[in-house]
Amino acid sequence: MTQTIAATSSNIEPSKLAMVPFVSVDNMMKIVNTIGPAKILAELADYIEADFLRWESFDKTPRVASHSKEGVIELMPTSDGETYGFKYVNGHPANMARGFQTVTALGMLARVDNGYPVLLSEMTILTALRTAATSAIAAKYLAPKCAKTMAIIGNGAQCEFQALAFKEVIGIDTVQLYDVDPEATVKAAANLSGSGLRVTACKSSQEAVSGADIVTTCTADKQYATILTDNMVGAGMHINAIGGDCPGKTELHKDILLRSDIFVEYPPQTRIEGEIQQLNDDYPITELWEVMIGKAKGRASDRQITLFDSVGFATEDFSALRYIRDQLESTDHYIDLDMLADPDDPRDLFGMIKRAAPSG
Amino acid sequence: MTQTIAATSSNIEPSKLAMVPFVSVDNMMKIVNTIGPAKILAELADYIEADFLRWESFDKTPRVASHSKEGVIELMPTSDGETYGFKYVNGHPANMARGFQTVTALGMLARVDNGYPVLLSEMTILTALRTAATSAIAAKYLAPKCAKTMAIIGNGAQCEFQALAFKEVIGIDTVQLYDVDPEATVKAAANLSGSGLRVTACKSSQEAVSGADIVTTCTADKQYATILTDNMVGAGMHINAIGGDCPGKTELHKDILLRSDIFVEYPPQTRIEGEIQQLNDDYPITELWEVMIGKAKGRASDRQITLFDSVGFATEDFSALRYIRDQLESTDHYIDLDMLADPDDPRDLFGMIKRAAPSG
Repeated sequence: MTQTIAATSSNIEPSKLAMVPFVSVDNMMKIVNTIGPAKILAELADYIEADFLRWESFDKTPRVASHSKEGVIELMPTSDGETYGFKYVNGHPANMARGFQTVTALGMLARVDNGYPVLLSEMTILTALRTAATSAIAAKYLAPKCAKTMAIIGNGAQCEFQALAFKEVIGIDTVQLYDVDPEATVKAAANLSGSGLRVTACKSSQEAVSGADIVTTCTADKQYATILTDNMVGAGMHINAIGGDCPGKTELHKDILLRSDIFVEYPPQTRIEGEIQQLNDDYPITELWEVMIGKAKGRASDRQITLFDSVGFATEDFSALRYIRDQLESTDHYIDLDMLADPDDPRDLFGMIKRAAPSG
Repeated sequence: MTQTIAATSSNIEPSKLAMVPFVSVDNMMKIVNTIGPAKILAELADYIEADFLRWESFDKTPRVASHSKEGVIELMPTSDGETYGFKYVNGHPANMARGFQTVTALGMLARVDNGYPVLLSEMTILTALRTAATSAIAAKYLAPKCAKTMAIIGNGAQCEFQALAFKEVIGIDTVQLYDVDPEATVKAAANLSGSGLRVTACKSSQEAVSGADIVTTCTADKQYATILTDNMVGAGMHINAIGGDCPGKTELHKDILLRSDIFVEYPPQTRIEGEIQQLNDDYPITELWEVMIGKAKGRASDRQITLFDSVGFATEDFSALRYIRDQLESTDHYIDLDMLADPDDPRDLFGMIKRAAPSG
């Protein structure tokens, strides 16, 4: 349902130019449930892939981080010259224990030609979706052909999205789950019932990775943790490492990195935040977009270990916001917020306020 | 009126943690008119001064700009260790001619300890207010004592705010207005009727600056323009230069800079964007906060020319957002937006979406 909030309570009805469509958490859930979680992940993967394929048209910068002892708050801007987007996102590992989300986010798109915002959206849910869709699209280029089984180490907020995205995008049919907290695994398995995936709850990381073609690590609250050790990684495996995404936060033993071919989103950011912060600054890595456009090699042999060292990049949020903007008309799950002052005469901002006064 | 948008249209009522207070343009105008434009400028000036006085407690960075041929889009973050804030703002000089605002903005405050947003607000109006309040508080330290007359060159969207702020904060009683477009001056003079200020519409910059203790330049759409020439600047004058705020955009002739003592907000940003982009990178300037805390000299003599080369800095937006947050309870002019996904179990984001589906 589309509501115009301000028009009902204002002395002067705001112009259409003043309005910015806003997708709340409630409406984001409605969009996901209207389209369906599996379908939305597949469609998001298409948008993300399309933007990676035109990587060079984006204005790119490492995210702007403000660190504190409790966590980090970041702004992630990018632009394709026509549309500008940014995401506000926090990462607070201790939040979960206090009843808060580890990651919350919101984002915006704006027109480059006049700077006017065209979409404001919650992005806690949308980030979860785009992270999984990005993992899956990377795996399309890097995972062994005909991969059917994926281990997921860490069964928190990201787990089910990963499982569904890999099912939709590359045809995974089995997930093997492990978490240090068995309740997280029970939660994830329950949520995935009816998804068409065969789900196995495992008692150890070793059990989870056994027989897996792909291993996804998505743990949240460890500092320099070792979720995977070298002996657990077999020839031909694809590792999708998404939990290490902050200076001082990694998931993989360094020996695994040295045996793998490493693929990243945006090197200036991944060198600081990714698993490769354990390696020298000039350690050879390959950019994912170069694989996608055929400029660099992805998987070249059956025995090669591929590692997607993913930290999340602004273009992925841009793709996700672009996707949501394109669903507004068909789903109608948004409200208009009067967010932009738009006086009849742009120079008369003061007069607009004065005329809005009850006495005037 | 406080409205909770989502609660009426959701299957599951969002928790209080999911809600972020939002101040729309309509509600910002109500806040301004409830408190009164003059009073709000004075109170904002106090907040801005208080934050300049604790300058060293802020995490500071030059704004992150995305330039295009039509204009610039910027993110301006800062944090005092307890609260984080940022502003989204555009600057598009050609917008006015196309019926858009040159500058539109919105901003947010969040808790540093958990990253949760606590305020989202329109900032087109709020930026106009904070810019004027900042100018006035700088003049309190830099302008000649007992200054009564101010020239305002450029009578666009910022003009009336400047006039009122200087009246409230330092006791200006006369403003002499000039704009290349006489209609802008007519607009500003009409808006200032009843303000208690004596307002004179002038036919030239020369006429406007004649007898003025303070000259404010706030033109918007010129590239390397010369709004003031050297001969127009008399001994003892304070120049409040706020229109030059972008690489390639200045208002003052270089000779004026060489005769003045120059005061700035945050040198790493002003060197790039301010009037001093015309000078060498090591040209001596003084930081405003150092004057405020008594670490550096402000105005030292009656014949000294002082120049506040203002480009606007993130802490000023932070102060303004902090002020608005403090008015929410007493004015009640905001709505709650369900902006944060807040599942009962933070790990169960997917389950929250699934349970919100109409079927289940």
